Amino acid sequence: MGYTKDDQLAIDTIRLLAVDATFTANSGHPGAPMGLAPAAHVMFNKFMSFNPSNPKWLNRDRFVLSNGHGCMLQYALLHLFGYKVSMDDIKAFRQVDSITPGHPEVMDTPGIEVTTGPLGQGFANAVGLAVAQAHTAAEFNKPGFDLITNHTFAFFGDGCAMEGIASEAASAAGHLQLGNLIMIYDDNHISIDGDTKCAFTEDVVKRFEAYGWHTQWVKEGDTDLEGIEKAIQIAKDVKDKPSMIKLTTTIGFGSLLQGTGGVHGNALKEDDCKQVKKKFGFNPDESFVVPQKVYEMYHKHAAEGAAKEAEWNKLLEKYGNEHKELAADLKRRLTGKLPEGWEKKLPTYKPGDKEQASRKLSEATLEAIHEVVPDLIGGSADLTGSNNTRWKNAIDFQPPSLGIGEYGGRYIRYGVREHAMAGMMNGISAYGTLIPFGGTFLNFVSYAAGSVRLSSLSHQRVIYVATHDSIGLGEDGPTHQPIETLAHFRALPNMMVWRPADGNECSAAYYMALTSTTTPSILALTRQNLPQLENSTLENGIKGGYVALENEKADITLVSTGSEVCICIEAVKYLKDKHNLTARVVSLPCFEVFDAQSKDYRLKVLPDGIPSMSVEVMSTLGWERYSHEQFGLNRFGASGAYKDVYKKFEFTPEGISKRAVATVDFYKGVKPRSPINRAFQQLI
Amino acid sequence: MGYTKDDQLAIDTIRLLAVDATFTANSGHPGAPMGLAPAAHVMFNKFMSFNPSNPKWLNRDRFVLSNGHGCMLQYALLHLFGYKVSMDDIKAFRQVDSITPGHPEVMDTPGIEVTTGPLGQGFANAVGLAVAQAHTAAEFNKPGFDLITNHTFAFFGDGCAMEGIASEAASAAGHLQLGNLIMIYDDNHISIDGDTKCAFTEDVVKRFEAYGWHTQWVKEGDTDLEGIEKAIQIAKDVKDKPSMIKLTTTIGFGSLLQGTGGVHGNALKEDDCKQVKKKFGFNPDESFVVPQKVYEMYHKHAAEGAAKEAEWNKLLEKYGNEHKELAADLKRRLTGKLPEGWEKKLPTYKPGDKEQASRKLSEATLEAIHEVVPDLIGGSADLTGSNNTRWKNAIDFQPPSLGIGEYGGRYIRYGVREHAMAGMMNGISAYGTLIPFGGTFLNFVSYAAGSVRLSSLSHQRVIYVATHDSIGLGEDGPTHQPIETLAHFRALPNMMVWRPADGNECSAAYYMALTSTTTPSILALTRQNLPQLENSTLENGIKGGYVALENEKADITLVSTGSEVCICIEAVKYLKDKHNLTARVVSLPCFEVFDAQSKDYRLKVLPDGIPSMSVEVMSTLGWERYSHEQFGLNRFGASGAYKDVYKKFEFTPEGISKRAVATVDFYKGVKPRSPINRAFQQLI
Repeated sequence: MGYTKDDQLAIDTIRLLAVDATFTANSGHPGAPMGLAPAAHVMFNKFMSFNPSNPKWLNRDRFVLSNGHGCMLQYALLHLFGYKVSMDDIKAFRQVDSITPGHPEVMDTPGIEVTTGPLGQGFANAVGLAVAQAHTAAEFNKPGFDLITNHTFAFFGDGCAMEGIASEAASAAGHLQLGNLIMIYDDNHISIDGDTKCAFTEDVVKRFEAYGWHTQWVKEGDTDLEGIEKAIQIAKDVKDKPSMIKLTTTIGFGSLLQGTGGVHGNALKEDDCKQVKKKFGFNPDESFVVPQKVYEMYHKHAAEGAAKEAEWNKLLEKYGNEHKELAADLKRRLTGKLPEGWEKKLPTYKPGDKEQASRKLSEATLEAIHEVVPDLIGGSADLTGSNNTRWKNAIDFQPPSLGIGEYGGRYIRYGVREHAMAGMMNGISAYGTLIPFGGTFLNFVSYAAGSVRLSSLSHQRVIYVATHDSIGLGEDGPTHQPIETLAHFRALPNMMVWRPADGNECSAAYYMALTSTTTPSILALTRQNLPQLENSTLENGIKGGYVALENEKADITLVSTGSEVCICIEAVKYLKDKHNLTARVVSLPCFEVFDAQSKDYRLKVLPDGIPSMSVEVMSTLGWERYSHEQFGLNRFGASGAYKDVYKKFEFTPEGISKRAVATVDFYKGVKPRSPINRAFQQLI
Repeated sequence: MGYTKDDQLAIDTIRLLAVDATFTANSGHPGAPMGLAPAAHVMFNKFMSFNPSNPKWLNRDRFVLSNGHGCMLQYALLHLFGYKVSMDDIKAFRQVDSITPGHPEVMDTPGIEVTTGPLGQGFANAVGLAVAQAHTAAEFNKPGFDLITNHTFAFFGDGCAMEGIASEAASAAGHLQLGNLIMIYDDNHISIDGDTKCAFTEDVVKRFEAYGWHTQWVKEGDTDLEGIEKAIQIAKDVKDKPSMIKLTTTIGFGSLLQGTGGVHGNALKEDDCKQVKKKFGFNPDESFVVPQKVYEMYHKHAAEGAAKEAEWNKLLEKYGNEHKELAADLKRRLTGKLPEGWEKKLPTYKPGDKEQASRKLSEATLEAIHEVVPDLIGGSADLTGSNNTRWKNAIDFQPPSLGIGEYGGRYIRYGVREHAMAGMMNGISAYGTLIPFGGTFLNFVSYAAGSVRLSSLSHQRVIYVATHDSIGLGEDGPTHQPIETLAHFRALPNMMVWRPADGNECSAAYYMALTSTTTPSILALTRQNLPQLENSTLENGIKGGYVALENEKADITLVSTGSEVCICIEAVKYLKDKHNLTARVVSLPCFEVFDAQSKDYRLKVLPDGIPSMSVEVMSTLGWERYSHEQFGLNRFGASGAYKDVYKKFEFTPEGISKRAVATVDFYKGVKPRSPINRAFQQLI
């Protein structure tokens, strides 16, 4: 309370930095920063604790700008508070290789918590950050040691409010009673198509009430700093519900075009820049101006944040004396490394061991490692019994008042909300203490594509447990049988798509997923049983591809993944018996990891001079990279018992052999170059 | 009202058909059909008009089972009312090549309106069907001729209610005040993870009220037939709001496991089948029993429906006398054919014509053809000015009371709701009188992946106008720049992915998209300007691939799409001048359409003996199918002015040439086979 002219000066400084940066870039979104500057000022300066000198301090309050197009707001704040974002960085807004890209990216800019911009993502990330805080607090806080107390603050706009992912995440957050989550809804009535009246006339506050949120409305968001402060304070005091504050603002406040779509996604015109500076009492002929007073005010708050961290570090030290193991565990988690020797718990198998569906193998892995990897926190989008994602004695992550779990629980019931699950997992991962995994059918990972993409782009260690990975799911039929899905995610940079063929490959997939700290993984797992293969070992598996069945002087290499590897191995016998052809089999559970092996190794697996044929029961797209010919399914599947479906599409030893024979014939007299040999390297 | 024992008999017959079919298949979902049979009975028999002898009668009431896993409910109804679904078909439930697959598919089963099962899709489809009805009625109904009066009825469950797509669609439907839409929410408290209490505790009715829906609650959904009837009647009487009736039911009503998750996705055990038959007064030792009375009751209703259609046909005939052109137009639309000569309106271009972004070329196409193709109804997910999807004099499709449009309007403001837009477009297309198109950034078509997949699977003529199709969008940066997206959708069966290089190719894309009545299309369009190419013609474009620049005795073929074709053409000159190499250029705007050309033609475009290199600024995955070497972007993009970004990643004549030289070197002394030549045909 007791706001002065200096506060207004700070707010207008933020506004004008957004005006100048977008004008200089001739690109970007000045409207939201100009409208939200007052709320940002109050929130950051009065409520948030953070230390710009150490943006990774664990107990900092988190801020998420879900309407990420307004990122000049965030860059301005980071600069003013003294993060490593210089005025030159601000001036390089939206230029190639700057640290101030068109939307906030966690990899680029110190102080950015999560990568946002695709609408609704930040909303789900914020819910995930709040989940992670609640869980970490429950695990580590002890009497006298309130170590983990941070809040998650977020802004979201009309666009986010319309997105399904935000609806899903809001419903989940309400259910989970996340009192540590405070979100401000920028009710500015403008989206790209103009007045929200043209598409969005629902009662947003009432909707959030229906989700179980605490709601408030600040009607004069442009000017009522005390009202904003009061609302945030009330929201902080509400401990058993997430809070949404509807803040009515004027987009582009101060511009001649304020309150219109004209100021949403376009820089202000030069004369408008000048008039707004004049209006705010700034020199219309100067740009990128920060009054010293403003720096001082914000640096003071930053120093208070640094002091809080110092205090917290002392608390942590004391905590370490009384709770040695917990403190060590917490510190280890923050390094991203797993507990020493954890990998010894990974199940291994030998040929002849029981046939099992890889979803069951995945379950066995989780069962085996969950104690030794306490960072794991998992769940499913309402397919727990099908995804096999829950270890036996798991406790649900639930608000205690429901009586069906606790915040210390490590199993999250995401509901039928695949997109929010993925977005929340990105937030959970970004928090820093946890490794999230989440289950759904492989086909429905596509529902989450927007968030999966951001797992990759923002380097989150997130694990998608994607069961029912092919036509092998059988009766559910084409609506549930992935065809394009693996191609989709294999084309996504920085994503490991695994399709293990047996138990050891499944363990290898988990090993790589858990130890790759900056790469997410999708584990495509079967519903149907698979035998344990001869040459499959953890060591082979973690190379992403290896020879599953070697044969000297082979006529053909069969390259396959998952449930088709064992059929290929049967086909080898069939080819010898019926066609007197010698085949070898390569298992290629993960393209991305195989690509990272030495060329020598890859050429041993896929050698020159032997024609090769891929076998996988889905789209062949992309398999041309690892094989000369492709046997797959470039059409939709069929509903029926899985063996009947495989037979219908000829994924049998006979069907494979027929095509292998055609391949060998086609390459008669040709010694084809291995597809590993390429004319030039790809850009990375 | 006045329900008798016969009604109960019909209801129990439906329940037991679901019990028997799932038991015989040993697979499927008996719970929902057993719980929803009373509501289905009342809805179909008391309210819905349809003619099983002509499932395509335009003015039939539409029914959508959004919780598609309960499809035995729908198959049982179709059988009982006399659609071409025999008892043998029911007995073949979930068997390969039956017409009763694991989830309802419009291509397979007469009487199924839309393909559902992936949760939330049917909900959005129903909203789309209601939009199409409202629009078609506004276009064709005239005083004295209430031709188009049907309602859309739908069921949805907790799973659908949790999905973001349903939230988006519900918000849109509320905004659009679709009084012709009546949806029953099966409030059975059970999803796959068990009691919905574990993840879904929001107030669903209040949420729908917030969206602007009319809501009711029938508390005894298992038994209160009169209450159900009354509620549906009230919903029908509400003309200015969509209606949601919360119907509290018992999943698996009658089973020993009723009210539990055990009866959701598993067949009943044998003894349970027997006891439920006994409980309902059926012989426990008989299966697939339909009492004659039940057939009679339903056939009577079917006959009434047939009579209604006959009456309607007379009305249409009379209408034809008074409104000749409208009647002819309506009849034409139902054939799927476009008005004769429409294609003459497609813009054509010649080399030297103005450079334009392909999003602008798309706009010009829509401007040119919207009058001659009145079936077109379009919109955007709140990116109208960026997608250029709105012709100049378009009227918005809006409820008249808002004063900003009318139901006769042909431009839909979808809001920031990509997934719902796509799902609604599937419903609009399924209605039968309209061809929907919808705009968003290519990167955000991924948000709609679940529905896009169903456009393909269910053969809907839906057009995705996907602008900002690459790193060429520039400053918005990696969060908005597609990398994996084209590979994703190229791997999707029955989807035309177009990336036109100029104006004539853009017209070709529209030509194919509009004339392919059973295949959806994605048009990937640039933000940046493109020149009009030398060899580009409509005739070449509609082949999906052609020689854009021929050169005899070429050393290399450059194969490209969209905005990179013109850079390849520049590279030809660069290669000649700097490296004395001769290159030819192929433009391949649509893989799917190119694949459908004769092998002869394809080999002319991509001949044997010449090494080829693809050039496209995104994932190279899949390009191995059309080229020997690939130049693309297997990493995320960058934020900056588009020319700087292209330069950074070397998509310049020089960068292309460097790699072309490496390719020519690599193939020195080798006469590579064209990638068109393959060892065997793919299954279709």
